[in-house]
Amino acid sequence: MKQFQDRIRAEGRVLPGNIIKVDGFLNHRVDTALMRDIAKEFKGRFDLTGLTAVLTVEASGIALATICAEEYGVPMIFAKKAKSDNIEGGLYKSDIYSYTYKKRVTLIVSSQWLGANDKVLIIDDFLANGEALRGLVEIVQAAGADLLGIGVAIEKGFQPGGARLRDAGIHLESLAIVENADETGITFREE
Amino acid sequence: MKQFQDRIRAEGRVLPGNIIKVDGFLNHRVDTALMRDIAKEFKGRFDLTGLTAVLTVEASGIALATICAEEYGVPMIFAKKAKSDNIEGGLYKSDIYSYTYKKRVTLIVSSQWLGANDKVLIIDDFLANGEALRGLVEIVQAAGADLLGIGVAIEKGFQPGGARLRDAGIHLESLAIVENADETGITFREE
Repeated sequence: MKQFQDRIRAEGRVLPGNIIKVDGFLNHRVDTALMRDIAKEFKGRFDLTGLTAVLTVEASGIALATICAEEYGVPMIFAKKAKSDNIEGGLYKSDIYSYTYKKRVTLIVSSQWLGANDKVLIIDDFLANGEALRGLVEIVQAAGADLLGIGVAIEKGFQPGGARLRDAGIHLESLAIVENADETGITFREE
Repeated sequence: MKQFQDRIRAEGRVLPGNIIKVDGFLNHRVDTALMRDIAKEFKGRFDLTGLTAVLTVEASGIALATICAEEYGVPMIFAKKAKSDNIEGGLYKSDIYSYTYKKRVTLIVSSQWLGANDKVLIIDDFLANGEALRGLVEIVQAAGADLLGIGVAIEKGFQPGGARLRDAGIHLESLAIVENADETGITFREE
């Protein structure tokens, strides 16, 4: 998605440790018109027949997932992050390792809102090591729901998450796959 | 907003401790069409002339704030919750007490995205003790920005947050003010 990649190149900043800072339009201040464009782009990349829900994880995935869900006419569900000792009953849960916070967190979704009749599109703003998305996939599987695919705004192609999900046979679409991010700039994988 | 109050009465559940559980359409699984209706309702209740941003706090305020921001044609900014020892420079911050998590948290917004030329509408899903909203108001003030008002989906009228904000002269609009929530049901303040 060239418009989006141009935006990342123009406004994104690279911080030490290959961190791509796009907090001016994606994950702190959010350009809602851009979110709508991204939602429409995903619509053309997935077969959303029978879709019943868009699933994401708090917090920075929620803005994009909300616009996607409205665009496709379905509810948006966001998994909550809980400490492992804070789990109630009636929940799907998946333990993941958060590289951002350097600790184990548990993703939880109420079993009331996801079940075997659901067809789910997972949406997130970033994919790097893929732990959050692995957790969401586990939750979809635990619910017995169908996973139609995963849509990601920015994938760090030099980290292993994307390859793992594709190797697992999941239909993953990333609108900007960053191959390199350092002081010389940002380069994207050819689409 | 009668449609919204009817929805709360029909689908909300009251848990011990006056907790109003509306996670089927507001803050876990989110009805995005309802968020759009709420965004339009706020539009009629505030003078949004010159609005430059909608501000909320992660996580459950983000869905509604995103739809509001898109409806009004401005960016959505969400304050992040950080531990007090995790603060970097270039940030507005406000310490609040989270009754949900029973601990002190610091709300942070990058000073890059909010300044003296901004006119801000604050949006949140819930108002009870009002700590999160007090923190957001402090951040708007620290930025030197104008606060046009605060729009809340559900206010717990039997807790002190709403009265405090109104007493401070802030234009607060709550679409459903719950006067009582117990095993006998939910009653709303007359609009």
